[in-house]
Amino acid sequence: MRAKMLQALAKLLVCVAALAGAGLPAGAQTAAGDPDAPRKADLITAYKILVNEGILDSFGHITIRSAKDPNIFFMPRAMPPALVSLDDLLELRVSDSQPVDPKGRRVNGERYIHGEIYKARPDVMSVIHSHSQAVIPLSLTAIKMKPVVAQAGFLPPETPNFEIRDARKDGDRGMQVTDSARGAALARTLSSHPVALMRGHGEVVVGASVKQAVVYAAYVDINARMQTQALLLSRDIVTMNEPELFKPEEFDINRPWEHLKQKTLDDAARAKVDRAQFGLDETQAKR
Amino acid sequence: MRAKMLQALAKLLVCVAALAGAGLPAGAQTAAGDPDAPRKADLITAYKILVNEGILDSFGHITIRSAKDPNIFFMPRAMPPALVSLDDLLELRVSDSQPVDPKGRRVNGERYIHGEIYKARPDVMSVIHSHSQAVIPLSLTAIKMKPVVAQAGFLPPETPNFEIRDARKDGDRGMQVTDSARGAALARTLSSHPVALMRGHGEVVVGASVKQAVVYAAYVDINARMQTQALLLSRDIVTMNEPELFKPEEFDINRPWEHLKQKTLDDAARAKVDRAQFGLDETQAKR
Amino acid sequence: MRAKMLQALAKLLVCVAALAGAGLPAGAQTAAGDPDAPRKADLITAYKILVNEGILDSFGHITIRSAKDPNIFFMPRAMPPALVSLDDLLELRVSDSQPVDPKGRRVNGERYIHGEIYKARPDVMSVIHSHSQAVIPLSLTAIKMKPVVAQAGFLPPETPNFEIRDARKDGDRGMQVTDSARGAALARTLSSHPVALMRGHGEVVVGASVKQAVVYAAYVDINARMQTQALLLSRDIVTMNEPELFKPEEFDINRPWEHLKQKTLDDAARAKVDRAQFGLDETQAKR
Amino acid sequence: MRAKMLQALAKLLVCVAALAGAGLPAGAQTAAGDPDAPRKADLITAYKILVNEGILDSFGHITIRSAKDPNIFFMPRAMPPALVSLDDLLELRVSDSQPVDPKGRRVNGERYIHGEIYKARPDVMSVIHSHSQAVIPLSLTAIKMKPVVAQAGFLPPETPNFEIRDARKDGDRGMQVTDSARGAALARTLSSHPVALMRGHGEVVVGASVKQAVVYAAYVDINARMQTQALLLSRDIVTMNEPELFKPEEFDINRPWEHLKQKTLDDAARAKVDRAQFGLDETQAKR
Repeated sequence: MRAKMLQALAKLLVCVAALAGAGLPAGAQTAAGDPDAPRKADLITAYKILVNEGILDSFGHITIRSAKDPNIFFMPRAMPPALVSLDDLLELRVSDSQPVDPKGRRVNGERYIHGEIYKARPDVMSVIHSHSQAVIPLSLTAIKMKPVVAQAGFLPPETPNFEIRDARKDGDRGMQVTDSARGAALARTLSSHPVALMRGHGEVVVGASVKQAVVYAAYVDINARMQTQALLLSRDIVTMNEPELFKPEEFDINRPWEHLKQKTLDDAARAKVDRAQFGLDETQAKR
Repeated sequence: MRAKMLQALAKLLVCVAALAGAGLPAGAQTAAGDPDAPRKADLITAYKILVNEGILDSFGHITIRSAKDPNIFFMPRAMPPALVSLDDLLELRVSDSQPVDPKGRRVNGERYIHGEIYKARPDVMSVIHSHSQAVIPLSLTAIKMKPVVAQAGFLPPETPNFEIRDARKDGDRGMQVTDSARGAALARTLSSHPVALMRGHGEVVVGASVKQAVVYAAYVDINARMQTQALLLSRDIVTMNEPELFKPEEFDINRPWEHLKQKTLDDAARAKVDRAQFGLDETQAKR
Repeated sequence: MRAKMLQALAKLLVCVAALAGAGLPAGAQTAAGDPDAPRKADLITAYKILVNEGILDSFGHITIRSAKDPNIFFMPRAMPPALVSLDDLLELRVSDSQPVDPKGRRVNGERYIHGEIYKARPDVMSVIHSHSQAVIPLSLTAIKMKPVVAQAGFLPPETPNFEIRDARKDGDRGMQVTDSARGAALARTLSSHPVALMRGHGEVVVGASVKQAVVYAAYVDINARMQTQALLLSRDIVTMNEPELFKPEEFDINRPWEHLKQKTLDDAARAKVDRAQFGLDETQAKR
Repeated sequence: MRAKMLQALAKLLVCVAALAGAGLPAGAQTAAGDPDAPRKADLITAYKILVNEGILDSFGHITIRSAKDPNIFFMPRAMPPALVSLDDLLELRVSDSQPVDPKGRRVNGERYIHGEIYKARPDVMSVIHSHSQAVIPLSLTAIKMKPVVAQAGFLPPETPNFEIRDARKDGDRGMQVTDSARGAALARTLSSHPVALMRGHGEVVVGASVKQAVVYAAYVDINARMQTQALLLSRDIVTMNEPELFKPEEFDINRPWEHLKQKTLDDAARAKVDRAQFGLDETQAKR
């Protein structure tokens, strides 16, 4: 009798734990032996972190290059970043930014950002495109983002700002990077840098891992806000000089990655709510 | 015995789920066959989203036009937006902004905003009036809001700014749109646009659906903040040109709608608290 | 058997409800027949609301005048606003700002703000002193706060700014209002207005009820932020003219009061945590 | 039977309470008779408070000097501030900033900030180094932080701003304080003050106790934001004069400390999440 009761209570506790867990990926889900499995788990965590930081809004995306095949990258289907899970990842080819198998799902219209950067930059294993509201004001002006905060020493002396008008063919329309030509133009603007702003749109951030790209994106956000606020106070500000910039290997990204993850967990723990409450039509969501 | 225990535990789980649910509308509540039922459910969700985004404060309101009768729109009684439920909706006539049946409840003093816009704009199925703190500073100056962020390409090159002094009769007082003449003047300022600012007051946003109006309101907020911040950095900013603006049908609003809904759910899930704790007098609340 | 189980589960639910309740005052606690009882309950709610809005920080205070004796006002002992409960209220005399019976507790050093305003203003039933970060920047400059947002039409054309240097006797020190002379000087600056800024310190807001004072304080905060942001964009802004200002009776404060209360409940519901976890020494806390 | 059920329910309640408790240190954990034990508990609380206030980010740190041996200070191993617990504290020597026993853990690279300040300032019992985004913009300009808000009267008329270029030897690189020479230079800039800004990096704040240092850090943050915002409005602002500054003993830090702790508890109570969900490798985390 007591056993049965404890069994029932255990079920309740599992339920409460699920409410607290809020959909963050368990390391235990990684398939043994697949080098992409832990990377994919980090990719899902990366989505949770950058949504939580307000860096990814309704339209941003993060991808990773496969560790097994450099011509493959993983990108979620077209969907809100807040909802991305492992099951939403599609395999795309670097060569043409097309899905190996779309599985009947809608691919993301801006996948060319990722494909063309992976093509131009063999060193890049992860690409983030976000609409960070910290960088957009700078991107609308002729003022260049420069490194001003200690942890943003990975930035070049001046971060390039992509102007899509230079990449758009005569008669073409729109701000989005929706074909290979636009993606290649963006990759040329990015050049060998870790970041490029995109005028009126946001930014791309790249890294040798998704952890590095996430940490860089977080500090780009802080650097842009600090530089902007300082410029409002004075046109004469101190930016970092050459001995203050650093090589990627000089920056321990594990600490900020763990810090950002903990903040996200605190937030996520507020609750796990059943989406079915909204009567969401899954067919519609997968368009 | 075990069945009884599980039954009792099930009741507890229902209770916990209700705490987590936080009053978001179940699709299941929609009456079969009534084309307005799903629209009304979206309207309640819209209130939750825009309160959560800080776009609706104590006095904003959202309405929808009936899908069955274009001379009818649904508007909550005069009440705080955070508390609106299906039961609070009243039917009002487009022709004179008066309730079909007030059901003993106090109608909203600014219902003329909605009635007069529905009268002037047969294409509009939803109207939002908010006191967004992102747009008010711009509305106090001679600077026009212009589209600067990619997702705000639905905006006209210059968004009109309603000056109630031009609509107020000699000797009249107040900033609010409390009669048909003021409502009609606002509708003339709005013209065929999706948005008009209102000097010192906020804005109106309209859409072909409540989802579209909500997504537009969210991006108006972002666009105003980005333009404002950029103008503090430099008077010479890049605004979007004609090939960068888009038609409504070119903008997939489902993704931002789902994203905003998920953010709202995360927040709402924190808890459902019994208003009775405050000893609220329902008669008073319904005045 | 089932009855016992449901009984046990009911106890659990009571516990969960207590966790969700988060210490907001039950109307049921008001002693029947005491006209000050519901006012005191509103006072506690007012503390929760203004802490939640970020308007009260570690040192702000709210008081109410007794409905039974106009020479008495109720003020919490010296303590952090976030922790105020009914049990912390002391009775003070308007005539000299001294406690009727200190009950061994430390009275607030700035009680003269309240006593002297109640003395000078028989119409005032509630006084708020806060360190609102929205008004402090304005208070440091020669720029006057003016009404710019529709709901702040209760403001005078120019809100006075209290300079304590004018009230401090030669050789006296400090920014705080710690005696009757300073309190009386502040009351003279306030004059017949609902608000006075205090240079480098914050503001006082008064009302015919604690609800009115809270709603006014919330809109003072919004008005100051909107005016500040607009002035950064342009020195030429539109402020409200005489026909746009309103009498207190023209402003329904119930709606914003209910809205602010609901926001506070949502926040408070996150949890109720036992202060004993911190091993707080109650004797020390009551100093 | 009923006893067993209540026992099982009690276990559930313990679990729920643990979820609510969120890792704040119990006073009961302090070892009787050790004068450092309550100080260490305050140190952990200090971490929770300053993470919650957004003043400590991924890289900030707080230390305390031992009450038993003035040549010893306690500092967490190199790790994200949000995760610090009693078990992470290491003993370091003031004389050379080296650990008495590293216990196989990675010591913090910037421990010289703390060691050199404790060496130069026998009055200091706690040191905070943070990357507060409120002070960084000022630190990039030639504008000095000055006291402008009443509770920041502990500040000197001008707060010094540390320029690491003056402390870096020829050919040396980096913004961080990673050796005794840099730490000693920072201590010289700090001089007898409670605060020094650090250009492009953040600040150091010191106190006669960790509570004082935390409260000072919170008001440095507010003062910097208020001064910055006021300067954007007008170059002619009123800063506090000599009779408005105060001695440390004139400022009751218990009230803001309790207030900040309560805010942190409210936040922490949202949930306690098992880090194991992320499959964290403890070995890796301890590097």
